[in-house]
Amino acid sequence: MTSPTTPSDSGHTSAPAPEGHAPRRRSWFKPRLDWLLVFVPIAIVLRFVPAFDNPTALFVVSCIAIIPLAGWMGRATEHLAEHLGQGVGGLLNATFGNAAELIIALFALSKGLTGVVKASITGSIIGNILLVLGLSFLAGGLKFRRQEFNRVAAGVSATALTLAAIALIIPSVFHQAAALVPVAAGGWTPEKEQGLSLAIAVVLFLTYALTLVFSLVTHRELFGAEDGKDVAREAGEELTRMEAEQHGHGHKPWSVGKAAGVLVGATAFVALISEFLVGAIESARESLGLTEVFVGVIVVAIIGNAAEHSSAILLAVRNKMDISIGIAVGSSLQIALFVAPVLLFASYLFGQPMNLEFTIPEVVAVVASIIIVEQIASDGESNWIEGLQLLSVYAVLAILFYFLPDVHPAAGAHTPAH
Amino acid sequence: MTSPTTPSDSGHTSAPAPEGHAPRRRSWFKPRLDWLLVFVPIAIVLRFVPAFDNPTALFVVSCIAIIPLAGWMGRATEHLAEHLGQGVGGLLNATFGNAAELIIALFALSKGLTGVVKASITGSIIGNILLVLGLSFLAGGLKFRRQEFNRVAAGVSATALTLAAIALIIPSVFHQAAALVPVAAGGWTPEKEQGLSLAIAVVLFLTYALTLVFSLVTHRELFGAEDGKDVAREAGEELTRMEAEQHGHGHKPWSVGKAAGVLVGATAFVALISEFLVGAIESARESLGLTEVFVGVIVVAIIGNAAEHSSAILLAVRNKMDISIGIAVGSSLQIALFVAPVLLFASYLFGQPMNLEFTIPEVVAVVASIIIVEQIASDGESNWIEGLQLLSVYAVLAILFYFLPDVHPAAGAHTPAH
Amino acid sequence: MTSPTTPSDSGHTSAPAPEGHAPRRRSWFKPRLDWLLVFVPIAIVLRFVPAFDNPTALFVVSCIAIIPLAGWMGRATEHLAEHLGQGVGGLLNATFGNAAELIIALFALSKGLTGVVKASITGSIIGNILLVLGLSFLAGGLKFRRQEFNRVAAGVSATALTLAAIALIIPSVFHQAAALVPVAAGGWTPEKEQGLSLAIAVVLFLTYALTLVFSLVTHRELFGAEDGKDVAREAGEELTRMEAEQHGHGHKPWSVGKAAGVLVGATAFVALISEFLVGAIESARESLGLTEVFVGVIVVAIIGNAAEHSSAILLAVRNKMDISIGIAVGSSLQIALFVAPVLLFASYLFGQPMNLEFTIPEVVAVVASIIIVEQIASDGESNWIEGLQLLSVYAVLAILFYFLPDVHPAAGAHTPAH
Repeated sequence: MTSPTTPSDSGHTSAPAPEGHAPRRRSWFKPRLDWLLVFVPIAIVLRFVPAFDNPTALFVVSCIAIIPLAGWMGRATEHLAEHLGQGVGGLLNATFGNAAELIIALFALSKGLTGVVKASITGSIIGNILLVLGLSFLAGGLKFRRQEFNRVAAGVSATALTLAAIALIIPSVFHQAAALVPVAAGGWTPEKEQGLSLAIAVVLFLTYALTLVFSLVTHRELFGAEDGKDVAREAGEELTRMEAEQHGHGHKPWSVGKAAGVLVGATAFVALISEFLVGAIESARESLGLTEVFVGVIVVAIIGNAAEHSSAILLAVRNKMDISIGIAVGSSLQIALFVAPVLLFASYLFGQPMNLEFTIPEVVAVVASIIIVEQIASDGESNWIEGLQLLSVYAVLAILFYFLPDVHPAAGAHTPAH
Repeated sequence: MTSPTTPSDSGHTSAPAPEGHAPRRRSWFKPRLDWLLVFVPIAIVLRFVPAFDNPTALFVVSCIAIIPLAGWMGRATEHLAEHLGQGVGGLLNATFGNAAELIIALFALSKGLTGVVKASITGSIIGNILLVLGLSFLAGGLKFRRQEFNRVAAGVSATALTLAAIALIIPSVFHQAAALVPVAAGGWTPEKEQGLSLAIAVVLFLTYALTLVFSLVTHRELFGAEDGKDVAREAGEELTRMEAEQHGHGHKPWSVGKAAGVLVGATAFVALISEFLVGAIESARESLGLTEVFVGVIVVAIIGNAAEHSSAILLAVRNKMDISIGIAVGSSLQIALFVAPVLLFASYLFGQPMNLEFTIPEVVAVVASIIIVEQIASDGESNWIEGLQLLSVYAVLAILFYFLPDVHPAAGAHTPAH
Repeated sequence: MTSPTTPSDSGHTSAPAPEGHAPRRRSWFKPRLDWLLVFVPIAIVLRFVPAFDNPTALFVVSCIAIIPLAGWMGRATEHLAEHLGQGVGGLLNATFGNAAELIIALFALSKGLTGVVKASITGSIIGNILLVLGLSFLAGGLKFRRQEFNRVAAGVSATALTLAAIALIIPSVFHQAAALVPVAAGGWTPEKEQGLSLAIAVVLFLTYALTLVFSLVTHRELFGAEDGKDVAREAGEELTRMEAEQHGHGHKPWSVGKAAGVLVGATAFVALISEFLVGAIESARESLGLTEVFVGVIVVAIIGNAAEHSSAILLAVRNKMDISIGIAVGSSLQIALFVAPVLLFASYLFGQPMNLEFTIPEVVAVVASIIIVEQIASDGESNWIEGLQLLSVYAVLAILFYFLPDVHPAAGAHTPAH
């Protein structure tokens, strides 16, 4: 570590006092998402009672209903992870962290909505590192003048993100270059794009597996905000503690049975509502006047990550910057290195192979986000203007996707040369 | 601050001795620009005496005449700022810092020369961070082996520049992507480009306003090269002191009346000469064999920034790196986040709305400049080779713009699809 | 230096013990390349005995035969450099470091294979910073938990690489933009591309010369891994020491005569075998089903750099990270700033002027490599996952070039507009 264990590391000295007794402030950010569960039965009624048949309403209600369900999935995963010990628990956390998004994307994939799936991958990456991290830095920065974090851990994640960005650019570069050559001379064909994408997905997946070995096994202490604990575990404990404070009772871990039961139940409901949501996308987005890419990049991505959003912001306000950044950047990383390859592999099961070719605006959005987050994370400290800068970039990209018509990579100027 | 208050911060220890008694060296860089004022009456004669009608001569003479006038505007602004107190003074400095460029651009805008305006925005951004900073690092590095600066302040500015670069890429990305879709299906139209540009300009303008709040209000001390002074104020004092040394009398701030009078007078002359300059651009550039984009990117940008150029270099030779970098990077920042949006807003008043779509070479030039300056600034120290590397990038970009024919974004391959 | 002379700088404290008495481990990496010299006579037989006429076999055998010859050229250069003193010796090392690649490229150029030449420039740049550095970080990281290096020296080199990347992007940007304009209005022509490339090559060459002045003259101590020695010299000594250990006798520098003789002899053989290799490329790559660009980017680049590869990895395992990085990054730098311009200048002698326009995939590969290496080098320390990340990027780019058909920049969509 270059910063030699700075004493104010993560602000353990300054944080407790202001945060322990500031209920007025904290209530602002309290993740009181549970009352949103009322939208689950509403969604079921809208879907199955013919009198209420309204795809737009179903879409909106399903979007809202998924938010608290994803939160329960996350909590159950963390409680289960505590019982499974550090190694397996960390793996569980890392694998199920984006389960809600994965489920929504799988349903979209089964309906052949590959444009929405790719857009939601893009949106999850930029949403986590611009919107979540931006709001965390801003909220934390309004309370604390300056917040510090472990820049070595942030750096390893940022580099992995750069690797992901490069991998996600390549299929577009291939298409653009190979389309200049006639097919007879080896030019672009959908099969080659597919083969290229599959090979890249394998590299990403292996890199993800080895990154887990690095962060959970060989260099675990780098990611430990405090001695002997990894970020995922501390995040779980911290969130449980916050939850306990809210409900007015002490911290009590769930039993294995309760955790597993809640996980299965919440996952089942997420799957059900995701099916509603995806089924209603097409008619809803038309009546709302939104493009497929805007729905994927902005709407679906925000819904699927809402639970992480509130956790990361809450932790930033408590000056637990390492965990906050770990959630935001780690989630982006997992989407790019784990969820994207898994979706590509899964697309073969549905008989509709998806490639990894993103549109140019999507590629630019991902690259731009990663460059600016790398820059902001490299100094190991944050303040409110850095949060605002991240949010400004998010706003600029949201404007782009709002104005952008649906572009299908296979259409237009990039068709194979004859 | 990550660098734990390095004692040699800005080299206050090493600088005084060599610089206090080295008049031979300093005379090299002395900003003896005032004699250039003789070109002001020459420009007026060339413009109004029919016998001397020669657009090329008028263009060249006007270019030269603006340099000392811009210098006087800057000095008057600084003296006025001293009377107005830190907050308002800083705001004045930040707002009027690029007034000469703004005036030239407004005249060009009123004549519909949007290509020149955009090229001069590009040129000011890359000119300040490559040419000015490069010459500063080189000149300072020839005198001092190694110069240090506050890398946190440099980092905040570099991040803001990255944000600006992303914002200026987006309209081109939008055009390229949306042009693949037929207009009937939501494809590219000039109106959409305009709407997108306007929305982005609003985001940039708001970000600039909040960045001023950050640097002038909440985190003022970050930008203070010495305790309790902001960079703008210290820059003013330092420059006044240098000026006083040259003229052989003590440091004496101007009265409010004198400062305001000089400001009004210099601004009026800048406006007059700008009108000459812009009026002569078209015929002059043809007879000189230069393209519109080369005139905008290289010529107009160098003229408009000449005063900052000499100040920044002078300060680097005196080892006041924080102020030198503050001028160069701050000026780029202001062009991108303040001048560009203001010009877009103003273009509506002229009835010829300008968008923010830059050509690909302009976008590449801005992005490349920002990436290399970010890299060079991130270690908090400079030497002569870093200055030379910045100048090499400037040379490469100047070569590009010299060879490049005038490309109009709306023409060529990027027209809307049918 | 920002990192305040860390005591474990380059691990001089921890390295000696484990490496001095670990023959089992070291034997793994022993550069026993000399037995490959047996392929030299085999290549000669394949080339000149009509009965064995087989271009594919000749290509493969020549590739292998060049590896040990390049190693002998390198060793002779180092021994000669020791006799010539620091300044001239450093210059010799810096100039002849990539002599084998230069010779292969000159032969390819003389046959008009400019596509292969450009591809091998790309491949050498990305091969050195992704493959060599990646393997070094991985091999070093498997032995040492964490390795440190001088991040200031690494930063100067990374910045020079960024400059090179910008310079190599510009000719493609020029082509794309100028091709939109009719030739009559100043649009793209091969002559303009040539003029632009020549001007850029001159800037790169001058920058390289001044970078040598910086690293060998004015700021030599920055690059000294230990007091008073430059990296090239220490690399030479370290490698000689390793060699001596292998052969069981003490370190004994060669005489000037022996060094010069070996240099001339090895160079002559490299030239001979390069001629075979280049002559066989066309028929060999067809029978192997490889594209011109894959052969250039992956095959020729790995062959030409094999000697550096083994040295850099060996040094990383001995925890001499500064020298290891110096070899890998320095070699990339030299290819971009020295070899590429020299090849362009030389192409005029062959009457077939080459320009510096690379294909988009080549440009993306170089830019991506430089961005990720910059990021990984900026913290001044390495571990195995960073090595793996570099190798993953290399794998992704190798996949791209494997799938990519041969794209000729002058063909396809980028022809001049009419």
